[in-house]
Amino acid sequence: MEKQSTRLGVGLGLLITAFLITGLLGFSLTGRGSEQVLASSAGTKAQVRNFKLYVRDTTLKMPDGKQIYVFGYTDDPQGPAKIPGPVLTVNEGDTVNLTLVNDKDPTKTSFNPDGDGHTIHLHGLDLPSAMDGDPMTSPTQDSVKEGSQYTYHFVAKEAGTYWYHCHESATEHIQMGMYGAFIVLPRGGDTHYAYAGTPRFDKSYTLVLSDMDSGAHQQDYTNLHSGGDNPNWTQYRPDYFLMNGHAWPDIMDDPSSFIQATVGQHLLVRLINCGYTVHAIHSHGFHFTVIATDGRKLSDPYQKDTLLLAPGERYDILFDLNQAGRYMFHDHIEQNTTNNGDYPGGMMTFINVNNPDGSNPVPMSSLHMNG
Amino acid sequence: MEKQSTRLGVGLGLLITAFLITGLLGFSLTGRGSEQVLASSAGTKAQVRNFKLYVRDTTLKMPDGKQIYVFGYTDDPQGPAKIPGPVLTVNEGDTVNLTLVNDKDPTKTSFNPDGDGHTIHLHGLDLPSAMDGDPMTSPTQDSVKEGSQYTYHFVAKEAGTYWYHCHESATEHIQMGMYGAFIVLPRGGDTHYAYAGTPRFDKSYTLVLSDMDSGAHQQDYTNLHSGGDNPNWTQYRPDYFLMNGHAWPDIMDDPSSFIQATVGQHLLVRLINCGYTVHAIHSHGFHFTVIATDGRKLSDPYQKDTLLLAPGERYDILFDLNQAGRYMFHDHIEQNTTNNGDYPGGMMTFINVNNPDGSNPVPMSSLHMNG
Amino acid sequence: MEKQSTRLGVGLGLLITAFLITGLLGFSLTGRGSEQVLASSAGTKAQVRNFKLYVRDTTLKMPDGKQIYVFGYTDDPQGPAKIPGPVLTVNEGDTVNLTLVNDKDPTKTSFNPDGDGHTIHLHGLDLPSAMDGDPMTSPTQDSVKEGSQYTYHFVAKEAGTYWYHCHESATEHIQMGMYGAFIVLPRGGDTHYAYAGTPRFDKSYTLVLSDMDSGAHQQDYTNLHSGGDNPNWTQYRPDYFLMNGHAWPDIMDDPSSFIQATVGQHLLVRLINCGYTVHAIHSHGFHFTVIATDGRKLSDPYQKDTLLLAPGERYDILFDLNQAGRYMFHDHIEQNTTNNGDYPGGMMTFINVNNPDGSNPVPMSSLHMNG
Repeated sequence: MEKQSTRLGVGLGLLITAFLITGLLGFSLTGRGSEQVLASSAGTKAQVRNFKLYVRDTTLKMPDGKQIYVFGYTDDPQGPAKIPGPVLTVNEGDTVNLTLVNDKDPTKTSFNPDGDGHTIHLHGLDLPSAMDGDPMTSPTQDSVKEGSQYTYHFVAKEAGTYWYHCHESATEHIQMGMYGAFIVLPRGGDTHYAYAGTPRFDKSYTLVLSDMDSGAHQQDYTNLHSGGDNPNWTQYRPDYFLMNGHAWPDIMDDPSSFIQATVGQHLLVRLINCGYTVHAIHSHGFHFTVIATDGRKLSDPYQKDTLLLAPGERYDILFDLNQAGRYMFHDHIEQNTTNNGDYPGGMMTFINVNNPDGSNPVPMSSLHMNG
Repeated sequence: MEKQSTRLGVGLGLLITAFLITGLLGFSLTGRGSEQVLASSAGTKAQVRNFKLYVRDTTLKMPDGKQIYVFGYTDDPQGPAKIPGPVLTVNEGDTVNLTLVNDKDPTKTSFNPDGDGHTIHLHGLDLPSAMDGDPMTSPTQDSVKEGSQYTYHFVAKEAGTYWYHCHESATEHIQMGMYGAFIVLPRGGDTHYAYAGTPRFDKSYTLVLSDMDSGAHQQDYTNLHSGGDNPNWTQYRPDYFLMNGHAWPDIMDDPSSFIQATVGQHLLVRLINCGYTVHAIHSHGFHFTVIATDGRKLSDPYQKDTLLLAPGERYDILFDLNQAGRYMFHDHIEQNTTNNGDYPGGMMTFINVNNPDGSNPVPMSSLHMNG
Repeated sequence: MEKQSTRLGVGLGLLITAFLITGLLGFSLTGRGSEQVLASSAGTKAQVRNFKLYVRDTTLKMPDGKQIYVFGYTDDPQGPAKIPGPVLTVNEGDTVNLTLVNDKDPTKTSFNPDGDGHTIHLHGLDLPSAMDGDPMTSPTQDSVKEGSQYTYHFVAKEAGTYWYHCHESATEHIQMGMYGAFIVLPRGGDTHYAYAGTPRFDKSYTLVLSDMDSGAHQQDYTNLHSGGDNPNWTQYRPDYFLMNGHAWPDIMDDPSSFIQATVGQHLLVRLINCGYTVHAIHSHGFHFTVIATDGRKLSDPYQKDTLLLAPGERYDILFDLNQAGRYMFHDHIEQNTTNNGDYPGGMMTFINVNNPDGSNPVPMSSLHMNG
């Protein structure tokens, strides 16, 4: 939370200004109220994709009962923040209008009367400055303040795994929960290939990795609602470690994080590190092939069983699920497989590989959840 | 140490259950009391390799006098824990029976009357769930408790650098010392090639890297023997940094860690990060070629002088020792080349390259050990 | 700071000793008082390059007013330490005489009456032990103490990005500021190619990354000037994060760190991590191609937008600046883009891409410096 005095005008003005300034939109936009189909050069149908995100706060409940104050994006203006924000999926070549509506800013309190405002930075999409979501370089020279909205308008040029996050007061706002996955499928929306020329897969999962310092979140809440100092972020020390917003064992109840497949299948996992520390993801039962990083196909894929992800990095990895069973898939920084120090917990899920008849050598009923 | 109430039956029952459940052993096992020779498809002789590991505790003495309580594996039931556990070396194609005998569990105390039990996870060997050493997915739904034993039975399918560690209460047990190297030589047991098709080497060393938080070890001991809280592992802060269980300068007395070679030789070093933090290994005097990671040959080797290893990762690197002298080989995270803050110490060794006549431009007698 | 009792003789003796011991200089040295031109085998002119570095201390002033005591190298005996030390640039094939003159050792105080002495380790240049700058293996078995000097003499064999740093009391001395970039241009000194066979670039920047724990620096100063304990380096926790010795927004006033280019240009950035923690450098607006690491060309370059650098590692990356604007280029370990916790700050710069007429979609006057 920082003090900023500039108050912005309404969103429409912003939008017009943005388009005038960028001058980078090389095709005719045929509509924006709903999805429109454009002819693309490849003969497949590119679409106009419209998304609206709002900013809300909420409290995450950890498996050990700890409550963590967060704020983040949601596509449901009636609901709380989603941590992570909704997965936004488009096809290569699609035109995207991603509107950030700041109708109710959780950072606007009597102790921070202007509110911080927010933005959406599309990490990895290489957008021009006006669409980049960095308030320092935005044409309005500020973030989207309460009462305003802004549409990030762009063509999704290259298939791959990306993410979005707020860049206003970035150290605070990302940590507080303002991040989500942004997936660009290959042209035509093929759901069996991550990139042109990479191997076919049967199923895919997107795992958003993050870490949280519950004490810093508490201090941030107090700062916003009762005054007092902001956390000193250089003293960051996470005590909860999340996949798609959940810590083990709650991860097992989240179908987006508990991987279910059948022996013989090929599996794509998109790993995105939205946290503030490195994570070293290890799979039991299988090596995997690293086929891409940061939304770019590798010309020379390689195999790993333990993969280091830096904050902000993404890796696309492929599994050949050649044996049935139930296999841990977790951070091998062992202190991160705890909830505030208690093992098992944290950044840990399973790859459940059934036999074709649905049976499993390790029946779910026998899964020993206490580690 | 966690509280677990299930008490297991004897090991034989476990073993039978395991074999019935897995149904994954695709060849006839001809014996297990001693090493047996099997015919392999490649015409070389695959063997049956039997290992037994026990769990013991001990105290590591650091160069500055600090004593660190540890527990870990040993192949000598009369001796203390070995930190790291013994290097287990087999040939590609060998059948392995690795028996964990929990006859005396150092975690079974009056303050933890059931004991934690232990397992062996063969990190990187991609074993089926029943042999995976993860108590959550084991057919017995638990670890190997005191009074029991369990045999991990598998074929070592692919040459490479792996490791083993306990997966019961993993955050605690690995930190306390339950890890060791597992090396699979190419078929036939060739000791001059790490993988089929990688360059020849003359000598090889395996360096198990780890880090320890002496305060957490002390608290763990107190918890086991006097009660009180477990360490909060998210507050992990290591103060000792080890190669093969030793910190500089004690490393120089360990022939498995102080590298000795002759100019003109090619050297393989297998690096295994069994610690809880990243390590950045730097060589003076030479770049090295990274030929494999996580037990898989790279199709496109590359050269480095400083290599980052995540917890759980392995790298196989080759040196062309083209100049005589004595060269530091150490973690370039500089605080890790200390013993509790005092330089020189910690994760540091030397590559000693003699002339063919045994002389060295830097005589050992002149090595200035105080940094 | 460590206590060392050996007092060295004068520099000339050292120099002669060094040359006698190494016996590794395979060509005739034609002079050393000034730059000399040697015939090289490739037909281009190799030169003799002479540098002198001194050791001084100073105080860095951070953007928030914090003063950090440092000591480091300088090529100006009348001036304070430069943090980082001067960029030393030579051509492949050049003969280098790099003299460390310890005429005034900032570590020699009444509380440390012998002084620590200093060295120059040329990280990545793979020099023989006598020229390696590691006091443990130097022929004099010590560092260069006050009143002495030493010339590191070598041929720069391979183009690439390297660095130099002190190896005496390395954990302390590097942290205190004793590091700088060492660049070897391709043979002939071509400034448009980083290596033979890598793509042409128009402009290049060298970014020395580092991190500092201001409390440890204060304690180090106190130790030297008032007695008391050294910092316990295992408790290292940085609170300032620097590019070429500056933290945002001061970086914007440093032409070596604030990147200025024109649309259509190709940009080389040499990244060197001289810090004690990993850094994850992210570019807005562009992916970049990783062409080399640790001074060695990659046979298989790859694209990234977020790149992890371990302490000691270097990466050479190429940008194709295909859009005008102003783009953040920063550590994505978000707590590192603060000054002692306050965002924006720390390890953050911009890539400023003007139109050919000098205009920019984001006028500098509008850059919103408060984040």
